[in-house]
Amino acid sequence: MKFGIAARRDREEALKLAYRVYDFLKVSGYEVYVDEEAHENFPHFSPDDVIPLERMDVDMMIVIGGDGTVLRVEHKTTRDIPILAINMGTLGFLAEVEPAETFFAISRVLEGDYFIDERMKIRTFVEGFNNIPDALNDVVVLTGIPGKITHLKYYIDGELAEEIRADGLIISTPTGSTAYALSAGGPLVDPRLHAILLVPLAPVALTARPLVVPDSSSIEIEVLTEREIILTVDGQFYTQLPPHLRIRIEKSPRKTKFVRFSKRIYPKYTLKIKKKF
Amino acid sequence: MKFGIAARRDREEALKLAYRVYDFLKVSGYEVYVDEEAHENFPHFSPDDVIPLERMDVDMMIVIGGDGTVLRVEHKTTRDIPILAINMGTLGFLAEVEPAETFFAISRVLEGDYFIDERMKIRTFVEGFNNIPDALNDVVVLTGIPGKITHLKYYIDGELAEEIRADGLIISTPTGSTAYALSAGGPLVDPRLHAILLVPLAPVALTARPLVVPDSSSIEIEVLTEREIILTVDGQFYTQLPPHLRIRIEKSPRKTKFVRFSKRIYPKYTLKIKKKF
Amino acid sequence: MKFGIAARRDREEALKLAYRVYDFLKVSGYEVYVDEEAHENFPHFSPDDVIPLERMDVDMMIVIGGDGTVLRVEHKTTRDIPILAINMGTLGFLAEVEPAETFFAISRVLEGDYFIDERMKIRTFVEGFNNIPDALNDVVVLTGIPGKITHLKYYIDGELAEEIRADGLIISTPTGSTAYALSAGGPLVDPRLHAILLVPLAPVALTARPLVVPDSSSIEIEVLTEREIILTVDGQFYTQLPPHLRIRIEKSPRKTKFVRFSKRIYPKYTLKIKKKF
Amino acid sequence: MKFGIAARRDREEALKLAYRVYDFLKVSGYEVYVDEEAHENFPHFSPDDVIPLERMDVDMMIVIGGDGTVLRVEHKTTRDIPILAINMGTLGFLAEVEPAETFFAISRVLEGDYFIDERMKIRTFVEGFNNIPDALNDVVVLTGIPGKITHLKYYIDGELAEEIRADGLIISTPTGSTAYALSAGGPLVDPRLHAILLVPLAPVALTARPLVVPDSSSIEIEVLTEREIILTVDGQFYTQLPPHLRIRIEKSPRKTKFVRFSKRIYPKYTLKIKKKF
Repeated sequence: MKFGIAARRDREEALKLAYRVYDFLKVSGYEVYVDEEAHENFPHFSPDDVIPLERMDVDMMIVIGGDGTVLRVEHKTTRDIPILAINMGTLGFLAEVEPAETFFAISRVLEGDYFIDERMKIRTFVEGFNNIPDALNDVVVLTGIPGKITHLKYYIDGELAEEIRADGLIISTPTGSTAYALSAGGPLVDPRLHAILLVPLAPVALTARPLVVPDSSSIEIEVLTEREIILTVDGQFYTQLPPHLRIRIEKSPRKTKFVRFSKRIYPKYTLKIKKKF
Repeated sequence: MKFGIAARRDREEALKLAYRVYDFLKVSGYEVYVDEEAHENFPHFSPDDVIPLERMDVDMMIVIGGDGTVLRVEHKTTRDIPILAINMGTLGFLAEVEPAETFFAISRVLEGDYFIDERMKIRTFVEGFNNIPDALNDVVVLTGIPGKITHLKYYIDGELAEEIRADGLIISTPTGSTAYALSAGGPLVDPRLHAILLVPLAPVALTARPLVVPDSSSIEIEVLTEREIILTVDGQFYTQLPPHLRIRIEKSPRKTKFVRFSKRIYPKYTLKIKKKF
Repeated sequence: MKFGIAARRDREEALKLAYRVYDFLKVSGYEVYVDEEAHENFPHFSPDDVIPLERMDVDMMIVIGGDGTVLRVEHKTTRDIPILAINMGTLGFLAEVEPAETFFAISRVLEGDYFIDERMKIRTFVEGFNNIPDALNDVVVLTGIPGKITHLKYYIDGELAEEIRADGLIISTPTGSTAYALSAGGPLVDPRLHAILLVPLAPVALTARPLVVPDSSSIEIEVLTEREIILTVDGQFYTQLPPHLRIRIEKSPRKTKFVRFSKRIYPKYTLKIKKKF
Repeated sequence: MKFGIAARRDREEALKLAYRVYDFLKVSGYEVYVDEEAHENFPHFSPDDVIPLERMDVDMMIVIGGDGTVLRVEHKTTRDIPILAINMGTLGFLAEVEPAETFFAISRVLEGDYFIDERMKIRTFVEGFNNIPDALNDVVVLTGIPGKITHLKYYIDGELAEEIRADGLIISTPTGSTAYALSAGGPLVDPRLHAILLVPLAPVALTARPLVVPDSSSIEIEVLTEREIILTVDGQFYTQLPPHLRIRIEKSPRKTKFVRFSKRIYPKYTLKIKKKF
């Protein structure tokens, strides 16, 4: 079994824990690779084991950090590598293993005593823009000028679902329902549900409401404003798009695979949102 | 083909239209039965054709009225009879055919040019209460004393999802997402989605949010208050329940079958909520 | 200085602390009276000092309990007696002194080192109903049948402000903005603001929103449903009212007077709502 | 009496109506000046009467357009000139006179049969930035990077009221409560109320709620993020501000004066929000 390791670059504890995990796995005889950026911030790894995330070709990624770190790894690795995520962030909706449980979790992995929790992703299609990554949480279409509303229409399977004047529109997976979509007034969606969530961001009309559709839906967004808009993916990827185009969003053929040790979703899922601050 | 007819009892136009439909079908040689309550309010039907809804054994029900009338027919008929619903209510989320289109719709039915839109229902299980009907829209657990909050815990598949102090809890189908659940802050849910919606009603904690779960979920509600509670189904059925019991809600094996002439859901579905008043 | 004492009847600690306060004040030579209901639950007070709240004629009430206890004392005492409220409830929006600070607070009172925080109340006028108490938190007009909406119009200074179909309408003081009004989606209102808050409860129309008006406004509510409605005051007083009547609500000439030791409102005011559960 | 005229530049009807008003007033013997920008788009005015808004020194401004045009005139004129606003926008919360009533309104003005509706404004103080105009609707503190939250603390009269991670914070007058603040979940505030409204924009914490404070409050906002922020006034004025600064907002000594013919606020005020789209 080959392992890859990535860590939050701005917290020394995360980097130190990454090193301990690296050392333990090496000593135990496993092949281990470390994210270049971790090494840049904590240059104690063997240079031979350091490679960029984009070239990770391992059986499992051990990711130490918050949801942002998990999303970064997700975006940069090109294969659906199972992720064992150790939480060194504030809330850790994605990373469920606490730091103190790290080596216990790794030993369970080595014994094969775990399962894979597959989470759906959504893919964005815009003519002429081929580099937009899949979203594990959300794709957001935003006004290019903060504070100036944009004007959008959105279609479900070719039929007009809604026309909004708003700061933007969040298209979210169930996984993303605890993230930006929640702040904008969306519901919690059980991660097992085959659904996509559309949440208008500060819409002018009070009747514009969150909408939950089957994940088999083809969602098209028509941008009607003269101004350019901004498209973000998981709060990690940004691009500016010209006005008057169409953005299509569908379920991705790829999934994110999380290493889990329990099939229980509740009460963790609903309790965590109480701790958001 | 045998038809049944029911109509809104408090609007003469609805009863008159019911009579015209009855007359047309009789003249055309079909077997037609009329809901007892329609006859009581408009005593022009042939007494031989009048039977209570509970004994309707027909191939299709023609229902003239608002969503309330449709729900009443749904609750009282004991078989999953396809419903052709003519809208004589204010909004008509369930009844999509407008009065002027009545005979055009019936002729399409007679030609077999229609399809059946099956909508899921939810069933309520409470020990000792066996008469609770299935819900097409929603089951609501309410405080027995208006204005005094109740205290509930709810579980998804045996795991605690949330504990609330609130006026109540709405458990809704996708069909019901445009009804009471929407007033309480729930999202719109596409009727094709295999989901159940849980929406707290005026919860004390600001972190108690609407939750959308797979329709395969077993939902259990534990009533913790000393006071009795009220359980309503589709705003049609009411019962008082003692405190300290458990209410289980699951997808029903039965479905409601609507006669439709178009598979289009949008934009009607989202536009109608703009007309709510 | 004459003192009155009241306490939460269902918590022995509250009653015991009430006794200690009573004993301390007696020993210190003050005239002290105790609420009849406290004595019934903790029969150690001198019978000569026990009187019902309705007959309390003292210079200050010491109230030990939660917001419910404070509201009960408020409703039953007939004069605007300053209230020193010791918090033995869960949150204590009204009662700010913690139990451990009780005797420190009393000594500051005896030294005259305190000030009076006056909170506005609202009064309800319904023809033929003269016994409706003033509200410190809120007056709520509710559907008489839980789950069946009521139909209301409300007027500000004689002009129609809104027509709603809803579970009810909350008319709240700034003090009440942290209570039921908040659960129904209302804003926090600084207690110093001269305002009255109107918050529809689960309205059918998504455009029915909370409204904040000057406290000099005369608010009239017209009940349009055929069904009777329920009117509650501070969640303490209940009455059923017939349909088709008019309810007028205005600022009361009376105020509630709280004994405070600091003029600071924030951050306590906003922090407490984070602890609601 | 000296008049100034301004009009929406992008609608010919507005410019034509402006010309007719200009012509009528000239013929009637009044001194009339026309906004430079109107003349640029409709060059039929006498060049002698054309001046920039900044130099308007008249007794009344006649403004033909939507709320945006009114706000532009408000921002550019340097004196508190009464504004007679003719609505050629979509909703017209500020401009209440309909085009067909233009000359009727002007004749009432010439007869002195009108009154002045004074609306409060708020002023923004940032060290080193002296050119920030007063806001009639709102001041908005926004994340400089769309989709990346900002981190703010806000203080009322020196006391911490709230700490938020959000897209931004809207500080609104009662007049602005029907604008951006409403989209972000704020309440309607009666324009007669002496209040300022604080509404977080898509806050991470579900407990961050709109807050209404007295207009005598001094509001201070502390920007804690490393990133620059954007400050907008009435959606008209934009500026980028460096991180780690303090923004103070207080009631302005200036007011906006609208020419009105009725003191009625309702039902127009609440009905208009139903037409937002």
